[in-house]
Order: sequence, then C-alpha cells, then structure tokens
Amino acid sequence: MYRFAKRFDGVGGSEIRKIFGLLAVPDMISFAGGNPSPELFPEETLAEISEEIIAENGKSVLQYGGTLGVPAFIELLKYRNEDIMKETDDLVVLSGSSQGIDFFAHTMIEKGDVILAESPSFLGALQTFRLADADIKTVSMQPDGIDTAELEEKIKQYNPKFLYTIPTFQNPSGITMSGQKRQKVYDTCEKYGVLILEDDPYAELRYSGQPLESIKSYDQSGIVCKLASFSKTISPGLRVGYAIAHKDIIAKFNLLKQGADVHTSNLTQAMVMEFLKRGYYDGHVKMLCAEYKKQRDAMCGAIDKYFPQDAVRTDPEGGLFVWVTLPEKVNAREVFDACVAQKVAFVVGPPFFAEGGHENTLRMNFSMPTIPDIEKGVERMGQIIREFV
Amino acid sequence: MYRFAKRFDGVGGSEIRKIFGLLAVPDMISFAGGNPSPELFPEETLAEISEEIIAENGKSVLQYGGTLGVPAFIELLKYRNEDIMKETDDLVVLSGSSQGIDFFAHTMIEKGDVILAESPSFLGALQTFRLADADIKTVSMQPDGIDTAELEEKIKQYNPKFLYTIPTFQNPSGITMSGQKRQKVYDTCEKYGVLILEDDPYAELRYSGQPLESIKSYDQSGIVCKLASFSKTISPGLRVGYAIAHKDIIAKFNLLKQGADVHTSNLTQAMVMEFLKRGYYDGHVKMLCAEYKKQRDAMCGAIDKYFPQDAVRTDPEGGLFVWVTLPEKVNAREVFDACVAQKVAFVVGPPFFAEGGHENTLRMNFSMPTIPDIEKGVERMGQIIREFV
Repeated sequence: MYRFAKRFDGVGGSEIRKIFGLLAVPDMISFAGGNPSPELFPEETLAEISEEIIAENGKSVLQYGGTLGVPAFIELLKYRNEDIMKETDDLVVLSGSSQGIDFFAHTMIEKGDVILAESPSFLGALQTFRLADADIKTVSMQPDGIDTAELEEKIKQYNPKFLYTIPTFQNPSGITMSGQKRQKVYDTCEKYGVLILEDDPYAELRYSGQPLESIKSYDQSGIVCKLASFSKTISPGLRVGYAIAHKDIIAKFNLLKQGADVHTSNLTQAMVMEFLKRGYYDGHVKMLCAEYKKQRDAMCGAIDKYFPQDAVRTDPEGGLFVWVTLPEKVNAREVFDACVAQKVAFVVGPPFFAEGGHENTLRMNFSMPTIPDIEKGVERMGQIIREFV
Repeated sequence: MYRFAKRFDGVGGSEIRKIFGLLAVPDMISFAGGNPSPELFPEETLAEISEEIIAENGKSVLQYGGTLGVPAFIELLKYRNEDIMKETDDLVVLSGSSQGIDFFAHTMIEKGDVILAESPSFLGALQTFRLADADIKTVSMQPDGIDTAELEEKIKQYNPKFLYTIPTFQNPSGITMSGQKRQKVYDTCEKYGVLILEDDPYAELRYSGQPLESIKSYDQSGIVCKLASFSKTISPGLRVGYAIAHKDIIAKFNLLKQGADVHTSNLTQAMVMEFLKRGYYDGHVKMLCAEYKKQRDAMCGAIDKYFPQDAVRTDPEGGLFVWVTLPEKVNAREVFDACVAQKVAFVVGPPFFAEGGHENTLRMNFSMPTIPDIEKGVERMGQIIREFV
C-alpha cells in the first residue's frame, strides 16, 4: 500500500530485540540480552541528583539546549579525553553511542558505497549501515582482533569509505584487538585513506589483562571517529554517549543531530555530568568490574565444565559477552529452540555475520543473570547441546 | 579532505540556531527563538517526580527499554488520542517530534523524490528533507492555511510522496488551517494517493478562536502520520514527543529508531507520563495559555501601534509566533542588522521559504520575552523599520 523507500528491502529488524518478547516468561534464564545488571544501577545517587538538578537549575535543564550538548558537560568530557583528542578534534554528546553509528553512516555513505565491518559484528550497526544504503563487506576476526592481512586485501579490493570496529571486548565475540593490531589497523587505514569508526562502549569494563590504547590515540591524520557510552557504566535508560572526531566530521553530526533529536535530553546529560563531577563514577565502575568479573568467571568456568569439549569459547577480558563456536554439524537455531523449551536462552550467531553462515555459533551474556542462574543455565545448555553433537 | 555524502552539499545548518550565539549579549531583547518561557516550567513538580521515579522504579527506568516506548506511556497516549486513532494505527514515542520528521523522511524518500511543503515552513523540517535527498516543492500559504487549489496543481505536476504541513499556529507564520481546508487537504491528498505528515506541536496552545480537528481525525485511508510533542507544553529539554500513523509506517519507524537512539530515555518518558497521570497536565496547559495570550496580545498590539501601517502581520490564535510582511522594498536582513545593533532581535523570513525570496518578511516570537520587553522591543523595531521605508 505504501511506497516505502527501497532501503528497507530485506531489513527485518534486530533478531535480538524480536526474541525479547519470547523470553518474558517466568523462570526463563536468559543469556540473550546485552543489558547491564539492574542490581548494580546507582539508583539512589541518580534519584537525588535528578531532583537537585531540576530544582536548582530547572530553567536551563528543562529548556532547549545546544545541539552538541550541555557546554559544561562537553568541557568535562573533553578534559577526560584529553589523552586521545587532537587539536583539530571536536566532541558531540549523543543519545547513546548508537546514534554515532547512524550519524557516521549518513555522513559518509552514498547509496552503494562499500564499508568494512568485522565478522561477526554488532547487529544494530549492521542494520544501520544497511538502512543507510551501504554495501557491507566483512573482515574475519581472530583471537587477537581483526585479520589485518585480510583487512588490507579488502581495502585494496573494495576502496571502502570506512572500517567499523569494536576493538575492546567486542559485541558479540568478546574479542579484544591487541595493541599491535590497533597500530597496524590504524596504519593500514591511514595508508589507503580509509576512515575508522571506533565503537568502544565496553572499554572501561575490564576484568583482567592490561588496558590498551584507543585506536583514536594513534590518530594523527584525523581518520578516526571514536564512540563512547555511559549505557554500560551508568545506565542505558538515560541514553547518553558521545563521539570524538575531526571537527569537520562533528560539524556534519551537528547538522544531522538538528534533525534527529535537536539535542540529547539536557536532564540526562546533566545527570551523567553530576555523577562524574561528584566523583562517583570511578568507584562505581570499579565496583561493576568486580561484580562482572565474578559473573564472567562463573560463565566461562561453567562452559568449560558443561559444554562438549569441542565447543570453543572466546576468553573475554571484559565486556558483557562470551562467544561460543559449537561443533560444525550443530545448528545453533535448533539448539536455541530446544533451550527455550527448557527455559534457558541465548542469541544465535548467524545474524551477527553480514555475509551469513556460521550456523554453529552463539552469543552468551553474563552481566544480567545471577551466578546461580549462570551455573544452572549453562549446565542445562550443555546437556541440550550434547544431544545435538 | 573527507569524502562526505553529497546530501550535505548546500546544507549549511539552521540559520536560527546559528544566530543564537549572536544574541547572548546583555540587554538583548530577543524575539528570535522558538523557546517556551522558562518562567512557566513546572520545575518543582518535575523535580519531585524524577526523584520518585528513579527511587521507586530505578531498575526498570535506568535499564534499556522497548524501542516504541515505555508500554504504560504508550497506552496512556493511545487513550488520550482515541478520538483520532484508527484500529490499524500504532503509536511510537519519539525523542521530540522532530525525530518523526526525520523518520518519515527516511521511511518514504528515495533520492530525488518530490515532497510538498508549505511556503513558508519550519526550517528544521526543510533541512531534514534536504538531508534525506528530497526534492522540495512548495505550496503557498493563505490566511486560512495552505492554498488548496495550488496544492492539487502541484500534486498533479509532481506526483509527490507526501505533503508536510503544520496545520495549527504554524511555525513560522502563526497561520491556522481552517476546518474546511483540513477536509479539502485530506480529500485532495487521498484522491491522488499522497501521504500527509501532520506536524502539530502547538495545537494545545490556543488563546482564542475555536479548537479544530486534527487532519488525522479524517484519516479513513491511513494516509496521515501525525506528530505531537510535549516540548511546548511541558519541557523541550526532556525531548519527548510521539507519532501516530498506520502500523506499517510505525513498523518502519521502529527499525529506524533502533539505529537512531534505540529508544527515547525511559526517565524522560516516565516523567511526562507521571505528569499526565497525576493530573497536572491540563491545568498546566491552561495556565500556559492564559500567560501566552497576554504576551501574544501585547506583541500584536505593539506591532499595530509601532510598525508602519503597510507592514502586515498575521493574527495567530495560538502558538508562539507572529509573522510580519514589511513593505516590498524593505530587506529584512538589513533591518535585522540594524536591530541587533540596537539590541533587539528577530528571525528573517527568507530561510523559511524552500524556494527562496520573500526578503521583506520576518518572524517574531512572543513566548520568551516579558511583556515590558515586548513593548520596548517592538517599539524599537518599529523605529528602525521606519528608517527603511
């Protein structure tokens, strides 16, 4: 009946978001989502902060604000990022860092332009790129991050506009790009004039290993747009993230943001700002890391204990996800159906591959379930998977 | 240096937003913005509500939410709109109603598609349509709304995908489309299979005359997408609006919203919901209307008193704006420069015309300035304009 734009052809919405309804049954143990633990939200602090902000500063917080963000918040974020920001860079506050994926896509992509993504990669980003009319080509992942030889090959073959990468504790794989590869990825992209969209929402949630430099820190040529978020560290419900990139790129984001939502809610910006300014943030993230570490250890331990030996898992040093590759002949969608019938859920792997395939893979989240549920759910999954081996 | 998408060619950003910096000087009397009065924000109530929501319901409010919005809020909005919603319609909460303009554009427009807009029209919408690669054709405004004969002509000539209209207290003109014309516009668009994007953020701010039916209320064929907002009635800083349209259209909005911002902040949604549920809304809007009526009357009276007789103003029955057409030979940009030097500001008219021209027009806002400032500023403007006549 409607003459919809062709960009929707074949785009069916996030498979993950669609299964959420399926999971809202009593006693379901879910490793499916990507949510932070609601038990760890700083509710009391945020309740107090929100009340104070509106009572003391309502006339400005409740009014229209600047498109790039609340000026004092922008300054604070620039200060906190001074190690990676260049003089020619600028910063924009976003309504979640996903908005930066959307803006970068619309800033750069003309219908049919090629972009490169890791394989697997974040489903939401892949959908955004498709809706922006991009032609997505992929580069394989290795245990230490993207395959840099294949990256150079694909760049030569396709002349892509940019590479989309989640270098730290990647969604969905949990893989972290090594320091050496970060340098190599930067150098390769710089050599061929390919931009890098560095999506880094999990970087602060590190439970083991050594912190690594953001790819943005190598950026002498202004080719890297870095996205960061408070969704995983403070609250996703507030929708606050930000982007750092060359000011010419941020100027385009500014134009797009005027149409997208005019600006991010002043209230939620001010809440995050106050949470940082009052010194709660670092301690809160430390607490999150201590708790999530236990959950990650429980999940990895349970997988090693209950899954068949030829099921291979990644070894995430942080973030929210473990990625499992089942024996070749096992179809994760069939396992999924059997698991949901037994009230344990995860997300199947294939949708994360822009090029399809990989029917024997799956993603498991450890931030939402409790440790007893992790134990119980992984044991149950292990039993079911064994029936398919 | 960057290979930006061509859609940015010739798009320079909102002229209004750019002059805001210019106006931030002491003693400037500004009729330039489109902001609601900060003196009338329900600060205390919202401060209390926000604190209670987070304290009592933090685990859900601070978590990720559904893409379409908080379910209880969606239900409440559907209930409040039951007179205009059809069974085949659905509703999505937006991060301000501007987001609906962006989504509708990306849902419908392929590069080069023609759309129709009123002339003049909302600057932000025109920019959004340009960035969505639309070819904008315009239809003249008359004192009782869009020229319906010209509308039919342009539809036959261009086969547009949709008509964008702000039927009530239009930004920038202050003009309201008569009931007769609403029916005629609907019938004409329905006849030719043209969709209607009805942007109606000001409708509740009526100070005189009789309320009119939304164009959406005529919609038997599912051709109208209606946008509404709480920015003008509660607070623009919270960024909460919504769209009502056929469910097939809302399904596309859902896909776009997943990439745009995943969902509107749960907190700001819940704040608006509670403000409605606790019964504050209707009384608050009544108070706003009483106050803004005085400001409108002051501005219209002052224009009649101080502007040259051959300056023609519109007669807005609500909203935030009066539109002035100066004598043909007067250039509003020159008047603007002279006015800003004398510390009184407005917005020149030409940017509101997608096709250009109309150098002798300007927009004046009466919601932000106090009544004494309206008196003083309009008198000063009148003196300056007389120098140009």
